[in-house]
Amino acid sequence: MKDSRRATRRRLLQFGAALSGGLLRAENTPGRLGTPLGPYTERSGFEKSARWTRPSKTPETGSSFSPLQDSVGTLTPSALHYERHHAGVPAIDPAKHQLVIHGMVERPLSLSVEEIKRLPSVSRILVLECGGNSGSEWAAKTAPDVQRSYGLASCSEWTGVPLSLLLAEVGVRPGASWVIAEGADACRMQRSIPLSKAQDNVLVAYGQNGEALRPSQGYPLRLLIPGWEGNTNVKWLHSLRVTSQPYMARDETSKYTDLMPDGKARIFTFQMEAKSVVTFPSGGQALSGPGLYELTGLAWSGRGRIERVEITIDGGRTWVEAALQEPRLPIAFTRFRLAWRWEGEEALIASRATDETGYVQPSREALIAVRGTNSGFHYNGIKLWKVHRDGTVTNVEV
Amino acid sequence: MKDSRRATRRRLLQFGAALSGGLLRAENTPGRLGTPLGPYTERSGFEKSARWTRPSKTPETGSSFSPLQDSVGTLTPSALHYERHHAGVPAIDPAKHQLVIHGMVERPLSLSVEEIKRLPSVSRILVLECGGNSGSEWAAKTAPDVQRSYGLASCSEWTGVPLSLLLAEVGVRPGASWVIAEGADACRMQRSIPLSKAQDNVLVAYGQNGEALRPSQGYPLRLLIPGWEGNTNVKWLHSLRVTSQPYMARDETSKYTDLMPDGKARIFTFQMEAKSVVTFPSGGQALSGPGLYELTGLAWSGRGRIERVEITIDGGRTWVEAALQEPRLPIAFTRFRLAWRWEGEEALIASRATDETGYVQPSREALIAVRGTNSGFHYNGIKLWKVHRDGTVTNVEV
Repeated sequence: MKDSRRATRRRLLQFGAALSGGLLRAENTPGRLGTPLGPYTERSGFEKSARWTRPSKTPETGSSFSPLQDSVGTLTPSALHYERHHAGVPAIDPAKHQLVIHGMVERPLSLSVEEIKRLPSVSRILVLECGGNSGSEWAAKTAPDVQRSYGLASCSEWTGVPLSLLLAEVGVRPGASWVIAEGADACRMQRSIPLSKAQDNVLVAYGQNGEALRPSQGYPLRLLIPGWEGNTNVKWLHSLRVTSQPYMARDETSKYTDLMPDGKARIFTFQMEAKSVVTFPSGGQALSGPGLYELTGLAWSGRGRIERVEITIDGGRTWVEAALQEPRLPIAFTRFRLAWRWEGEEALIASRATDETGYVQPSREALIAVRGTNSGFHYNGIKLWKVHRDGTVTNVEV
Repeated sequence: MKDSRRATRRRLLQFGAALSGGLLRAENTPGRLGTPLGPYTERSGFEKSARWTRPSKTPETGSSFSPLQDSVGTLTPSALHYERHHAGVPAIDPAKHQLVIHGMVERPLSLSVEEIKRLPSVSRILVLECGGNSGSEWAAKTAPDVQRSYGLASCSEWTGVPLSLLLAEVGVRPGASWVIAEGADACRMQRSIPLSKAQDNVLVAYGQNGEALRPSQGYPLRLLIPGWEGNTNVKWLHSLRVTSQPYMARDETSKYTDLMPDGKARIFTFQMEAKSVVTFPSGGQALSGPGLYELTGLAWSGRGRIERVEITIDGGRTWVEAALQEPRLPIAFTRFRLAWRWEGEEALIASRATDETGYVQPSREALIAVRGTNSGFHYNGIKLWKVHRDGTVTNVEV
């Protein structure tokens, strides 16, 4: 009778142990007392997810990649937020830190962190993405997994003071058009921000995911520039200088520019476009056997909300629409999902995002047709993963 | 001339050092290289915010209180999420953990954590609040600060599988009306959940803020029951038994019930009502002197979105509307803020939340008129803090 009941309905799961007895428990022996209450608790010792850093003689400069293959939901744990440092993480005592706002202003000002925290603030869940994220996809030989290819993007709730408020307070002088932001790291990393953006929706942030910024994210103060490449979101912020021209710093001339096929470089290409990537199944993972899986990934756009994500499992011949996790917040990770019954066939999986401006994430070929392959920055082509018959998943080498 | 320019506009800040020179920097000496890139990074050593636990001979059972006075934005860092344990935190190897779904079902089932993670999932930012939160407010002598009085509430992004899907898979038999959830902690903590709620919007969660649940939050699996008292959100979940009646466990009979003035107790009072509290300025904090401050706090409701938060600084004679941080998510912390220029006067500060059902947070007096003072649970009265002329802030003892 039990078998006949089961036959009346195709089982969704096709896995999980059916129980023969009515009352059976995995662990039915009395347990011992566990660990006590505590002041600040860490993750389980069974959890090993970590950022990846390329071995280097100069680990103070470079990037660490967030483990997107392990991500769930839409937020990145602060401990796993990607890093991009140019001279290591400075150890800053917030009680001694000052933000100086000067240059072409009426009333130059130096503010302590405590003073900044007294000002009207806002919180926003925002993605940050390095301008060099997925730069390996420009090359013929791509990185083997989603962490090493797409892990320079992360999403947090940031809290801070609108920069527009601070600029109104110091009084910008006529003729000013740029703000030079400088960090307190050893290299005094600098970026030039157009005044129009600085007066729009930029934050001087002190909070990340409900607590202070992590040291590697700019503690105690950083810029948050919604939708713009990560490098402009200057960390350990200690100086904002209002000027009439950009600084032409190293990281906006020799780096973070787009070298085009004709040998000329596009400069000040701040805006990050719509992008998406499948995080499961992705390179280096494996399906344990035929059956139901949740195919999932992340989509985002520097221009606003994600409107639609389509998924292909046949290398782009056909596309189906994925479910999008609500609320879809502007310039934030949007988690997409699709229930997928894998029957053991070879599959070529990719996602394609469309944002609220109508912009559609381009194919790699369409992107290269315009931009060539000289660039290491601002890659946002559609990303394919190959599922093999044995369930292993690899990057698609092109 | 500089002074005259300054005189033309009242300065917002009234603090911050004005700079006399054009170009002056706080730290203009070349720095040393900072710390390198890393796999999993912690907060700054200067940050000391921690949960508070009452000293106890049995620290495996009790509560730890989240430091709401230090909170920014709307999320609680996982490391600072409040705890409520009944037999300590078990150390569970997720590879050995099983969730058994049995009782009045057609096809009892045992699922591993990996199998659960393959199923269709959803993510929701949700507040969790202990039924005993702010229970000290029922008493004549209240706790001195917002952490010890209101710290049993926290907000995270949770990811998991809808329980409705699992119940559909096992096939609930006619006549069933309750689900008994049991944890794998030493006391096998149990709560009875009406089947109608279990089939509505409950999650079997494995993710918190983008990574696995923290051990003290139920690693590797817990129930998430949107809007219901924390205790029903059973941690270390290993058994769901479908039945025709509640279990009448210790924590739903002698505890988590509301003892009324007539000596009878309300039982199964799951639903958490609208509530709010000012986190700055709050008891134990101090204003450093007259000037501009951001008055801020948190509001939430188990019934949906927060519609409005009003603030009084004169003990309830007059109220003004606070700004609410968008997006206002249902059953989540909503951060409210009000710019406030303190001139050194005595102030009695409180917030009053209204949720989308129209429910208005009651005064303490109105609440006690209905519920008496026998109860230790489900307190949601308006919370007053007193700002003294010297800037110190205390709880208002009643």
